[in-house]
Amino acid sequence: MILRTSSEFKSDKPFVDVCLSPVFLDHFDKTNAIVVVIDVLRATSSMCIALENGAEKIIPVATIEESMKYKEKGFLVGAERNGLPVAGFDFGNSPFSFVGDNIKGSSIAITTSNGTKAISLAKGAKRIAVASFLNLSAISAWLKEQNSYTIILCSGWKDTFNLEDTLCAGAIVENLLGHFELSINRDAALAAQSMYKLAKDDLYAFLHHSSHAIRLEKLEINDDIKFCLTPDQTDVVPVLQDDALVSVRVKQSV
Amino acid sequence: MILRTSSEFKSDKPFVDVCLSPVFLDHFDKTNAIVVVIDVLRATSSMCIALENGAEKIIPVATIEESMKYKEKGFLVGAERNGLPVAGFDFGNSPFSFVGDNIKGSSIAITTSNGTKAISLAKGAKRIAVASFLNLSAISAWLKEQNSYTIILCSGWKDTFNLEDTLCAGAIVENLLGHFELSINRDAALAAQSMYKLAKDDLYAFLHHSSHAIRLEKLEINDDIKFCLTPDQTDVVPVLQDDALVSVRVKQSV
Repeated sequence: MILRTSSEFKSDKPFVDVCLSPVFLDHFDKTNAIVVVIDVLRATSSMCIALENGAEKIIPVATIEESMKYKEKGFLVGAERNGLPVAGFDFGNSPFSFVGDNIKGSSIAITTSNGTKAISLAKGAKRIAVASFLNLSAISAWLKEQNSYTIILCSGWKDTFNLEDTLCAGAIVENLLGHFELSINRDAALAAQSMYKLAKDDLYAFLHHSSHAIRLEKLEINDDIKFCLTPDQTDVVPVLQDDALVSVRVKQSV
Repeated sequence: MILRTSSEFKSDKPFVDVCLSPVFLDHFDKTNAIVVVIDVLRATSSMCIALENGAEKIIPVATIEESMKYKEKGFLVGAERNGLPVAGFDFGNSPFSFVGDNIKGSSIAITTSNGTKAISLAKGAKRIAVASFLNLSAISAWLKEQNSYTIILCSGWKDTFNLEDTLCAGAIVENLLGHFELSINRDAALAAQSMYKLAKDDLYAFLHHSSHAIRLEKLEINDDIKFCLTPDQTDVVPVLQDDALVSVRVKQSV
């Protein structure tokens, strides 16, 4: 069920909506939208870093079995479940895995607990892009260039709400407003934006007591978390073309 | 799928969780929980006011057809869809409908767009209660008395997130912490609490640009909205007994 179409709430500017969990995506009309998928810890952060470091394309796949088929074809493959790398794969889900010499020119198939699933659910959208704090200014500039209805999709955790993706969505909303407007379905965007304003001076402290931080605590990936919360480490905008994320360039200055 | 049981995250204090939309309720183990249902605009606010004004019991029913059957049995009946009263019923969804002399000692059957549906979904919980800003201190004191795992369930709007219920959930969390703890699934509670802190000095201003405020604008129910955002207008705690909400008393001072 789509809650409300833009025809009921007019504006000269394009609308931006925030979808706080993949389970809410059916409430939005994605067919005319750019869907921006966020999985801050850590899938979309790692995707940005892999493309920044010269990966040619990243193929998000839903299952470990599907990734294995890509491995047999000679792809580099990454797989994460419950925060841990899966045995037999080249990478887990840490952005620091995607910085080596083997990344340049590579094709990588990757499956993660939440992020790649959200990308898969977004299919049918006019265009699908990937965001994280690491490419915050770049994705914001690119969306302004596109000048089109945008749905920011938080991957969440096992289909529920999470804080880190919501904060990143809020950061993008904060950057877009003025050029974009909130639609009638604005409560999630208002919530995300207000939480981002509250948290932005110290994202790490704000998230320190979050579910994911506690869950990941024993994995000792504090450096990953700190890095993933650092804005603007890359100008890359990963965009889905056919079935692969490739890097597109932003025309205007970011 | 239940995300995490309390056995994995120990505390001497009872846990309090916030469920931001009825679609997330299956992620929680309601069988051992008190579920507190919130529909600030306006179902649970009106229920509090009806009991405050002497209604003996309120039967939340899912459909208009079911309400009609209660009308035939001599009940007072309320029905609201999309913010409007339904023709042929005694009340719509305004708290000011539930203040007249006819309320005292009455039995009322009521169906609303979101609130009564959420109450219905909560069935199977150890206990079900109803909250709004109007009984904020009373529900908080009652929950402390119960000293039991609590899920605060936001009714939302057509199964999605909304701001006003989230803020009320945040207000209850704010009152309970110290006596209660957040569980591992804490992101929604943290979000609700931080938004409430941001909004509490002027809830009406914070909500002025929300979806529901815009949707209800043309219905001219501004007085309803202002009233529903006013804390502590009643000491009533509506609790479901059999199929009816009745008023229970808080033992300790509120």
